[in-house]
Order: sequence, then structure tokens, then C-alpha cells
Amino acid sequence: MNQKGVFITFEGPEGAGKTTVMNELAKEFTAEGMDIVTTREPGGIRIAEKIRAIILDNQHLEMDARTEALLYAAARRQHLVEVIKPALAAGKIVLCDRFVDASLAYQGYARGIGVAEVWAINEFAIADTMPDKTLLFDLNPEVGLSRIANGKNRENNRLDKESVAFHEKVREGYHLLVKESPDRFITIDAEKSQDEVKVNVRNILKNYLDTKMN
Amino acid sequence: MNQKGVFITFEGPEGAGKTTVMNELAKEFTAEGMDIVTTREPGGIRIAEKIRAIILDNQHLEMDARTEALLYAAARRQHLVEVIKPALAAGKIVLCDRFVDASLAYQGYARGIGVAEVWAINEFAIADTMPDKTLLFDLNPEVGLSRIANGKNRENNRLDKESVAFHEKVREGYHLLVKESPDRFITIDAEKSQDEVKVNVRNILKNYLDTKMN
Repeated sequence: MNQKGVFITFEGPEGAGKTTVMNELAKEFTAEGMDIVTTREPGGIRIAEKIRAIILDNQHLEMDARTEALLYAAARRQHLVEVIKPALAAGKIVLCDRFVDASLAYQGYARGIGVAEVWAINEFAIADTMPDKTLLFDLNPEVGLSRIANGKNRENNRLDKESVAFHEKVREGYHLLVKESPDRFITIDAEKSQDEVKVNVRNILKNYLDTKMN
Repeated sequence: MNQKGVFITFEGPEGAGKTTVMNELAKEFTAEGMDIVTTREPGGIRIAEKIRAIILDNQHLEMDARTEALLYAAARRQHLVEVIKPALAAGKIVLCDRFVDASLAYQGYARGIGVAEVWAINEFAIADTMPDKTLLFDLNPEVGLSRIANGKNRENNRLDKESVAFHEKVREGYHLLVKESPDRFITIDAEKSQDEVKVNVRNILKNYLDTKMN
């Protein structure tokens, strides 16, 4: 490892609260004097933003799943080179909202391309820059989806069954990754209240960073 | 193999004459009643064209070599899915001007990313659709470059030395690939006159297609 900083990723489904917790803790840690950088792909990086625009274009119904996975890996690479690597080289603590594991769980596992296959292109993309720690915000998909539904003032009990089944697969995928890399992952019970989750994550990160930085 | 057609790729540097020979033979074979499709990436496929536009944008000086390789693989995948696979499924003979070997020789070998690394992402992109045969138009880079210079009415003997050295690496890369896949590659002596090369390639292809289609 030639990086001097610390690279921490936040993973989990929508409605798990990871983005909110990450941003609030980043503010608190910064106020305490830590040198924190928060980011998420494509992160304002123009090449990565242009790639993401191709992925998200609603008209591109013909896009193949493998094309999409390669484009995500390309955007990831450029964001890594322009944002994450320089920050790590400068000794900063990088908190990144989703990274390689999201591709493995969503595209590799839940969409069925294959975890090993999607890992192959992401290994190429990230080379030696794996996260030091990954916090998995884990919760029952129905809980996450109902939080989203509430947040958007949708009708409460009209959760799409297909969507629940898909998110159950995503969760399974994440659990598989935890099994494969037990030292890197820390699983967070994200069914608890946002405050409880935040306190829990704060303690875990504090402990980890104290050990790591000293 | 569930493909019914035949997939033939033409590889080699600029100035080797592969594009001209490919297009002329395609016309002749079509006139003889063969069901030929000629193509080259990105081939008018809108997603592939948009990806290629990001690669070729002169302003993108910050583009990382691995990002570029992933984008080429993504464009390749979409072109394959939309053009090559349907043509092969329909039993056609597909002649493609450059394919995966160009990425391996140029980016993997000559640019130094690594042939195995670039193969990993291209294996993901093309999955089971490897060319049945690949014609490598092989020639001394100085010959190829001087042909290009003449064609563009540039001064004859002012070949860029760095460019020659780079193209020598590309040639080495192609030779390495021939060694690894001797059954797939047919090496064409492209230093001969265009007419001689065309007669040679016509005979080789005719023989191969006769065996393959009957």
C-alpha cells in the first residue's frame, strides 16, 4: 500500500440511511479536526459524468447489461484517479458513498451477470485501491422500501413485489461479499432508528480511525 | 457455438491496406452470392458512437489509460450485441475491421497496461463471441507509415521516430497474440503490393469459407 490516507466506503440499498449518516458524520469529524473528503461516483468528474449520462439516458433501452457494467467500471476508474487516489496520497480520510461492492451486488449478483465476471472488470478499474473498510448498511428490503415510500409521500403499502424480490437478491449479494471479505466489511444493523445507527457508525469509525491513524 | 455464421476479423496497423482489401473482397464475394456483412466499431450504433465520442474528445487530456480501455470494451460490447451477434445468428459472414486483438496489441502491449489485464475486460465484453479467423496484415512499421505519409501527401522521409518505435511495439504485440492463438490467426505479408495482398487474402478466405460453409 503506497497510500497514506484511509479509504472507507458506505454500501447498502436505498432507504438504509447510509448517505445521511455518512454526510452528518463527515461534518462532525471535520469539526473535530479530521481531514475528511466525502464523495460518490461520478463526483463531478467530467469524463465520469459524461459516461454516467450515457448509462442513465432513458432512451437507451437497447443498452446491454455488460455494456452498462463496463461503463460503470470506466466511470469508477476516472473518479478513482481524479478524486480518491489524490486524496489518499495527501493523507486524507476518504468516505465514499457506494463503490465496487455496489456493482458486485447489483449487477454481478442481483442482475445475474456473475460476481466473478463483474469483479474482473472492476479489478481492472480499481487495481490496487480497495477500500480499507466497508460499512454495509444492512436491513430488510421491505423496511428500506417503505422508508423511501414514506419519504416520497407515496401510498404506504403499495410496495412493488418485484422490487422487494430484487432488493432481497441485492441483500443476498452483499451478504455473500461479506462472507468473502470478512476483514474488510463491517455490517451495520440499519433497521434501527437513524440516531441509533449514527451513534453506532460513529463509534465504529472512531475506533477504527484511532487505531489506523496512530 | 450457437452461431451459424462465420466471424472474420482484419487486424494490423494503419497503412497495411486491410480496410481497402476487406471492402473490395466484400464486394466481390457479395457479387458471387455470399451473404457478407462488413463492419467496424463503433459502426453507427448510437451507444457505441457516444462512447467513442468521449474517447476521442481532444479536450479529455485527463483520461486515464484504463478508463479508455474500459470505454473501448463497452463500445465493443454494444456493437457486438447489436451488429455482429444478430448477423452471425442469421448465418451471415461477418468481416470486421479490427476487433479485440487491436485493444490487446495497442493498449495491452504497446501502451503497457498488460495483455492479460486488457484481455480480462474484453473477455467480459465479448464473452463467447471470438472471431473464427483473424487475418493479421503484417508489415514493417516504416513501410506502413511511409504509405500513410504518401497517401496524405506529406513529406516522405520525415517519419516520426517515436511513432516508428511505438508501431514496432504494436507489431510485437500482434506477433505475441499469433503465438498464443496460432489456430485462429493467419498472418498476411502486407509489404507486398496491394494487388498481391488482395489475391492472397481472397484465396485464403475462399478456402476457409468453402470448408466452413460446406
